[in-house]
Amino acid sequence: MGEFPLIGRVTARLASGAASRQAAAGVVLGPGDDAAVVLAPDGRVVVTTDLLVEGRHFRRDWSTGYDVGRKAAAQNLADVVAMGARPTALVVGFGAPAALPAAWVEELAAGLADEAARVGASVVGGDMTAADEVVVAVTALGDLEGRRPVTRSGARPGDTVCVVGRLGWAAAGLRLLQGPSLEGARRGPAGPLVAAHQRPDPPYAAGAALAAAGATAMIDVSDGLLADAGHIAAASHVGIALDLAALRALGAPGVGDEELLTGGDDHALLATMPPTGPAPGLATAMPAGCVVVGRVVTGSGVLVDGVPAGEVAGTGGHRHWD
Amino acid sequence: MGEFPLIGRVTARLASGAASRQAAAGVVLGPGDDAAVVLAPDGRVVVTTDLLVEGRHFRRDWSTGYDVGRKAAAQNLADVVAMGARPTALVVGFGAPAALPAAWVEELAAGLADEAARVGASVVGGDMTAADEVVVAVTALGDLEGRRPVTRSGARPGDTVCVVGRLGWAAAGLRLLQGPSLEGARRGPAGPLVAAHQRPDPPYAAGAALAAAGATAMIDVSDGLLADAGHIAAASHVGIALDLAALRALGAPGVGDEELLTGGDDHALLATMPPTGPAPGLATAMPAGCVVVGRVVTGSGVLVDGVPAGEVAGTGGHRHWD
Repeated sequence: MGEFPLIGRVTARLASGAASRQAAAGVVLGPGDDAAVVLAPDGRVVVTTDLLVEGRHFRRDWSTGYDVGRKAAAQNLADVVAMGARPTALVVGFGAPAALPAAWVEELAAGLADEAARVGASVVGGDMTAADEVVVAVTALGDLEGRRPVTRSGARPGDTVCVVGRLGWAAAGLRLLQGPSLEGARRGPAGPLVAAHQRPDPPYAAGAALAAAGATAMIDVSDGLLADAGHIAAASHVGIALDLAALRALGAPGVGDEELLTGGDDHALLATMPPTGPAPGLATAMPAGCVVVGRVVTGSGVLVDGVPAGEVAGTGGHRHWD
Repeated sequence: MGEFPLIGRVTARLASGAASRQAAAGVVLGPGDDAAVVLAPDGRVVVTTDLLVEGRHFRRDWSTGYDVGRKAAAQNLADVVAMGARPTALVVGFGAPAALPAAWVEELAAGLADEAARVGASVVGGDMTAADEVVVAVTALGDLEGRRPVTRSGARPGDTVCVVGRLGWAAAGLRLLQGPSLEGARRGPAGPLVAAHQRPDPPYAAGAALAAAGATAMIDVSDGLLADAGHIAAASHVGIALDLAALRALGAPGVGDEELLTGGDDHALLATMPPTGPAPGLATAMPAGCVVVGRVVTGSGVLVDGVPAGEVAGTGGHRHWD
């Protein structure tokens, strides 16, 4: 499997998708040159990168190449969205053993392109090389459309804490895949949880909506709700008090409380909203799908029903490096 | 080695460098949030990515972590420069076995930051994960400063072909490292060639200068001169006739003709320049360091002293995937 023919096939696959044609409006120069050129109409560009490694972030017996492409794109697009930006483009670095079937790589490319197309973005460049294990490095770009970036550091006591998206679904799906019956996990009543692990469904539209509604802080839930709420608490020098019963509305049958609180990989958005809206005296208009799950308090750290997160039985946040 | 403490140390290393302070003018939001925000004053952003894998793109017994950082940054910055753009920012995905010394990672971060600082850019974000082998995924962004991007497809018969930078140095250095005496290679008269392999020195300033002087096509020489000239020839539907004696001026004592013609990794710039300058009747003012090495002709493919590249003894272009 030579580099150049495969790049040619993958580039052709990317360029032939309805996805790419649809998104080409924002792309000045696509794949095939030393670099790509993407519009940045705002005069600023949002950029984030993630590295996925086989056996740690995905398994080829649990996920197809298409699933891995969808997932790799989704987690980067969700990071762009969590700044309140609109994703515009992806570039992808890919490494694999020479024995990896070319069809798997073409599926991966299709998954990346299709997930990008969900938000009007496209894959504009990449690099392929030999490696001992399969690695997928995705970088996503985005446009703030004139808004200020929503960071982790702007939460203030009195703000409302809300979540849009799913909590614990992917973690429960992973547990089912690790269980005794792989086929049972895929086909049984828990199928949606397994699917959530294989292919996350971040609430893309909510990011810009939350930013426009005046979100004071926002984060993509990828390390688990407690860990990510903790990141906002630390960066904003506040405490975050969560309500477990409210959080359970974001789970699903079969999702345990620990999975709800510590499962990453669903890429829900956690935002803090001001008690009054963008203009003084106006109530904040919460975007569709927002679930109020708590409030910002003075102090530090994260509380669940008044109990410090570190003392919540069986939890501890999700770490990628372990 | 947990992810979060190490990220904290590496981020601190990046943020404390003179490099980062100097470049912070173009950075709206640096490392530590879901994504970074970088200025794109031109309303467009140039983006390119490369994945480096231990044992294939570097060896830890031949290169320090600092060298690998410099090299990983350099090859991406050179791709941005080859579009005629000014590099603005890097993001980095990093994977390594848990046993890798943290000091090596900190050196890598220092090398990335220092190389970026050479062009006024900075490292604005990253991701770290466990992996079986050391992988470094770098994405570089750049600003076109109002110029059109210089692609591979604009060369026209009659254009002058020029090169800025080194040819064959890194390939000769690699050959010396592969020889019997590693210490001899490092310390002997061929030391500069070994250093060129460990730490490339792309002609960063020349990219924008060539673009401003009206370059019709440009490419970063990373696959080897014959292969990269071939990319311009194919994309522009022209032939490229090279003069071997002129090319030798870009080599050095100890660099063989095959290394000159097929060695990548020095990241010279190969550009085609119009016979008249940007305005009709004006001669093209070649930027400093330009060496005229041939001309664009009708036809196809690359010729060296009139001989088709495929028939030049002992050559064949450098492929990363083999």
